[in-house]
Amino acid sequence: MSAADAAQEARTRLDSLAKPPGSLGRLEALAIRLAETQGRADPRTVPRRLIVFAGDHGVVEEGIGLWPSEVTAAMMRLIATGRSSCSALAAASGTEVVLVDAGSRAPLPGPDTGRDERAGAGTANLARGPAMDAAGMAAALAIGARAAARAAEDGIAVIATGEMGIGNTTVAACLAALLTGAPAEAVVGPGAGSTPESLARKRAVVAEAVARARPLLDTDVGAAIASVGGFEILAIAGCIREAARRGITVVADGFVAGAGALVARALDPGALRTAIAAHRGAEPGHAAVLEALGLAPFLEWDLRLGEGTGALLLMPMLDAAAALLRDVATLEEAIAG
Amino acid sequence: MSAADAAQEARTRLDSLAKPPGSLGRLEALAIRLAETQGRADPRTVPRRLIVFAGDHGVVEEGIGLWPSEVTAAMMRLIATGRSSCSALAAASGTEVVLVDAGSRAPLPGPDTGRDERAGAGTANLARGPAMDAAGMAAALAIGARAAARAAEDGIAVIATGEMGIGNTTVAACLAALLTGAPAEAVVGPGAGSTPESLARKRAVVAEAVARARPLLDTDVGAAIASVGGFEILAIAGCIREAARRGITVVADGFVAGAGALVARALDPGALRTAIAAHRGAEPGHAAVLEALGLAPFLEWDLRLGEGTGALLLMPMLDAAAALLRDVATLEEAIAG
Repeated sequence: MSAADAAQEARTRLDSLAKPPGSLGRLEALAIRLAETQGRADPRTVPRRLIVFAGDHGVVEEGIGLWPSEVTAAMMRLIATGRSSCSALAAASGTEVVLVDAGSRAPLPGPDTGRDERAGAGTANLARGPAMDAAGMAAALAIGARAAARAAEDGIAVIATGEMGIGNTTVAACLAALLTGAPAEAVVGPGAGSTPESLARKRAVVAEAVARARPLLDTDVGAAIASVGGFEILAIAGCIREAARRGITVVADGFVAGAGALVARALDPGALRTAIAAHRGAEPGHAAVLEALGLAPFLEWDLRLGEGTGALLLMPMLDAAAALLRDVATLEEAIAG
Repeated sequence: MSAADAAQEARTRLDSLAKPPGSLGRLEALAIRLAETQGRADPRTVPRRLIVFAGDHGVVEEGIGLWPSEVTAAMMRLIATGRSSCSALAAASGTEVVLVDAGSRAPLPGPDTGRDERAGAGTANLARGPAMDAAGMAAALAIGARAAARAAEDGIAVIATGEMGIGNTTVAACLAALLTGAPAEAVVGPGAGSTPESLARKRAVVAEAVARARPLLDTDVGAAIASVGGFEILAIAGCIREAARRGITVVADGFVAGAGALVARALDPGALRTAIAAHRGAEPGHAAVLEALGLAPFLEWDLRLGEGTGALLLMPMLDAAAALLRDVATLEEAIAG
């Protein structure tokens, strides 16, 4: 069934149920979108998988945030051992967690803790030159595509994309400014934490990087993207694009995952066919990203953690949306008693 | 542990976790409130129970809506047989459903389908005189209190309150205007559906009933409330108050349940000690109700169905909030590796 037909069938079904039409508001919108992403009016929501892509960013040496790159490795360990925020929310929502190292500085401690697929040991400093070359970019995109392909092979119905990477809101801000046209100062926020000094430095770094990359957009969008990076964000882009190809619903988390979605669409206009935006977070650039993507978020909870936590919060809402389509009597059946 | 101590301990715990402080936004607020309602920093979220209170309203004969009172019975049958919207969302979120008839016109078809505890066979028409007398009001409050007491005996950690009753947004609008001081025209909305004529009639009926009841407020708040009703809304009030006494978290659904919470607080200033507002719905009076209650809603999904559906959508969020408090490593543990 085509996406449009599935959406229409879901809409018709919802309007026939034993309740005032439209009275479940955004839950009905979610049900229709879910049906559309899967091309079926009885969409599945399990099994589901959070894929956390990790990466490090050379730009951290510019003092754009509070945390050193070592924190990426520490958080990867926590995710691998099931004690991070995303681990807790994943368990609570019945979602499997897979950690994929797309390009952190330090290798994972062992094969049981995640997939080491690094496209590089962190990106180069985007304030001094391109964050990566074309080969690095292709490798990062392929990492995400392979993760989505494995999910398809495992029968996963819904993918949540998450990320871990100290410095990556700086990179996401560059991508947001580049790919939405928003001014750099409007898309830079505190990320995982800031001082007035670090925030000013972050603004300057983003503004300079975007000014350098913008002229490339018309001739080589890939080069513009590669000039800022990063590996985990491009892996998310590759994952979203491959999920679209395979008809798997993919729930994007926050600002950084949204930047990945922007990249996916810049490289392939149909890449968001199966994408859902979980929430609008606290980072000031997220609203501009969502608007540019044309994806209306479902939660506005001032989240700014990443790791896929916002996408995980939406998972039970997908269950509710699917149950609405599947388990509720029609008005006709209700009247017949 | 006192509610304040539990909230403080939860706050301290959240601030110690391996994530930027406050970065889970509203989920952290929910975790703190959940701890506060239970007086423990490791709050429980299961087992949980949706209690749907049903009732009919004599005011329906005034033409204030689109649906006849017979629909209440039809929807009660659907809830009893597990095919209503709330049944589907309850199953999806692992929540038991109990239907309590607080005062519908038609008795339930059998003892297996719900509890027939009717305080009356529908209320009197509030446009022509008091909806109920003091005895009816006491009976309705007691129905709710007994339902909360049974939940306590059954070890229920979280109660969701829902309702079903054709005409009850008219009654909720009267209560909202009476107990918040908002003008009648500001709190009347389409409810389950309206025509321009029915909406104008609803506005006039609410304005007249509130004008008649308002003088009673200073001398006999109970009489003011009883003059508009209704049985299921007062049962919700009794349930919320008893849940507070027993330390059970109680999640109020939409506009009608919010009116029940207003009644509970009008009768007992401490009645909202364990209450959480799930969402802000589409009815225009809901915002005024929530503001008067001092409860910040967690979802804004334009819901206007009732049946407890909005409260059910919050249930998995409670699981996530509890998991955050329970399962995430502290920053200290993360650094220690």
